[in-house]
Amino acid sequence: MATSSSVKQPSPVDGRSFRLALVQLGGCTPSKATNLERAKKLVLEAAKGKNGDGSVDMIVLPECFNSLYGAEHFDTYAEPITGDSGEGGETTALLHKLAKDTKKWLIGGSIPERDNDGKLYNTSTIWNPDGKMIAKYRKMHLFDIDIPGGITFQESKTLTGGNELLTFDTDFGKLGLAICYDVRFPEVAMIAARSGCIAMIYPGAFNTTTGPPYWELLARARAVDNQIYVAMCSPARAPDGYPAWGHSMLVEPTGKVQAELDEKEGIAFGEIDVDLINKTRKGIPISVQRRFDCYTSVAKV
Amino acid sequence: MATSSSVKQPSPVDGRSFRLALVQLGGCTPSKATNLERAKKLVLEAAKGKNGDGSVDMIVLPECFNSLYGAEHFDTYAEPITGDSGEGGETTALLHKLAKDTKKWLIGGSIPERDNDGKLYNTSTIWNPDGKMIAKYRKMHLFDIDIPGGITFQESKTLTGGNELLTFDTDFGKLGLAICYDVRFPEVAMIAARSGCIAMIYPGAFNTTTGPPYWELLARARAVDNQIYVAMCSPARAPDGYPAWGHSMLVEPTGKVQAELDEKEGIAFGEIDVDLINKTRKGIPISVQRRFDCYTSVAKV
Repeated sequence: MATSSSVKQPSPVDGRSFRLALVQLGGCTPSKATNLERAKKLVLEAAKGKNGDGSVDMIVLPECFNSLYGAEHFDTYAEPITGDSGEGGETTALLHKLAKDTKKWLIGGSIPERDNDGKLYNTSTIWNPDGKMIAKYRKMHLFDIDIPGGITFQESKTLTGGNELLTFDTDFGKLGLAICYDVRFPEVAMIAARSGCIAMIYPGAFNTTTGPPYWELLARARAVDNQIYVAMCSPARAPDGYPAWGHSMLVEPTGKVQAELDEKEGIAFGEIDVDLINKTRKGIPISVQRRFDCYTSVAKV
Repeated sequence: MATSSSVKQPSPVDGRSFRLALVQLGGCTPSKATNLERAKKLVLEAAKGKNGDGSVDMIVLPECFNSLYGAEHFDTYAEPITGDSGEGGETTALLHKLAKDTKKWLIGGSIPERDNDGKLYNTSTIWNPDGKMIAKYRKMHLFDIDIPGGITFQESKTLTGGNELLTFDTDFGKLGLAICYDVRFPEVAMIAARSGCIAMIYPGAFNTTTGPPYWELLARARAVDNQIYVAMCSPARAPDGYPAWGHSMLVEPTGKVQAELDEKEGIAFGEIDVDLINKTRKGIPISVQRRFDCYTSVAKV
């Protein structure tokens, strides 16, 4: 047995603890106005915090929260994003206002975005408590799957994949964000964590075929492999249309599910605890034991 | 919704189905002769197959099956490995004979190996049904952890880490092998799978602290991220000494645990089904959707 001091250990992470609210928005309707009204209501509810005392720092919306989810629908609901203060469309205008009014960080789940050249993207926007959009991310790995007897879906019929991973700085430290199917590609979270991110946030909409075997497993795998927090934010199950899995959750760096919803509309509150990240990394110091002398790091660090 | 034909799909894997036996050997004693006698008995039992009809193709032993597990013990039990027909020590001599006599593929878990220069390694040997050692692997990521109130262990006090990952060809296709703590480093399985491996085999000895939160999760994560089979082969729990977790298991490419033992001595039988690999990869074709235009592949393929 070794003495505690003899095992090489990583430096503490650069960040501080914060509180997160995952808004599992009720299944979207054909009316964008209705969808935005529901998003507004739930974000304002989330901003009150778990105990009604406003103790929440960041609010997350799910994937495609203003739109029906389906390759044939994206064009109908798409908006341009032309500035960092909500210019371009009614959805970003609302997100700008909500972040500013609540004075919270707001992760705008995702919406179909129409670019200058007419291409459509599945895009997430990141808003600071001043209502400024500090970053956006276009889903890189499009959801093209074909499970016989289960689900067939092809985002690439109408969407274009983004070409840049996203990490961004907040008051609490660096965070990473990607969307739904991106979670199946380990590189995304590995690169974010190795560049200093303390959490990955995935707005996503798994379904009743892929949800049960994969949603929680993938979230926990990304958390444990990278010793970071992982937040997954889904829409609620709709009575018809795309059968979203729900089960928005926050997973700790040990793989423990700290907070989880069922399939219905609701808000999951959780806390990113920087001490737990440090404790986990100190106990099992994989972050300083990788053998980049023997294989390539995806993060080139 | 897409038609089935419009989603890009991967080529079928190069391999064929085979049957595996994971020997969860009873906790090792201080006597190497006793340990080898027990290993022999269980391998011969495994060779009979699940139904006593010999229907098994490959037998796997656990990590450090001839030795007490502890940095202070490795030197006592170490053996040189000087040839491919069992030369060097009594353990490899036995493995050579067992593979030849049973006419099965035999994965020699791992043993402490003493190199020419006196360095010690945690080494796995791979034997074909002719009794020839076709490859060996030296554990790359040494088990150095320090969980207060849980477990502190430092293999690096007496062991040296290997510098080469292992994949090897069999009658059934290409396989990858790594040892225990290596499973925490996603690159190992990613590189193997992307080079064509249909399964990863991990002789390993998690413990009662790290076993419950991590053993199954890591096995399932490697399987799902790479759409391969993952076999984990542990020693049984010993009444004293290192508290091995047990729970040897075979996980399918969907993340489903096909076979699993509890903590006691026993043999888990399972099947690697190439059709299921192909079906899983066809349904969720991540293997052809990775965005190596946007990030580095650890496998450089």
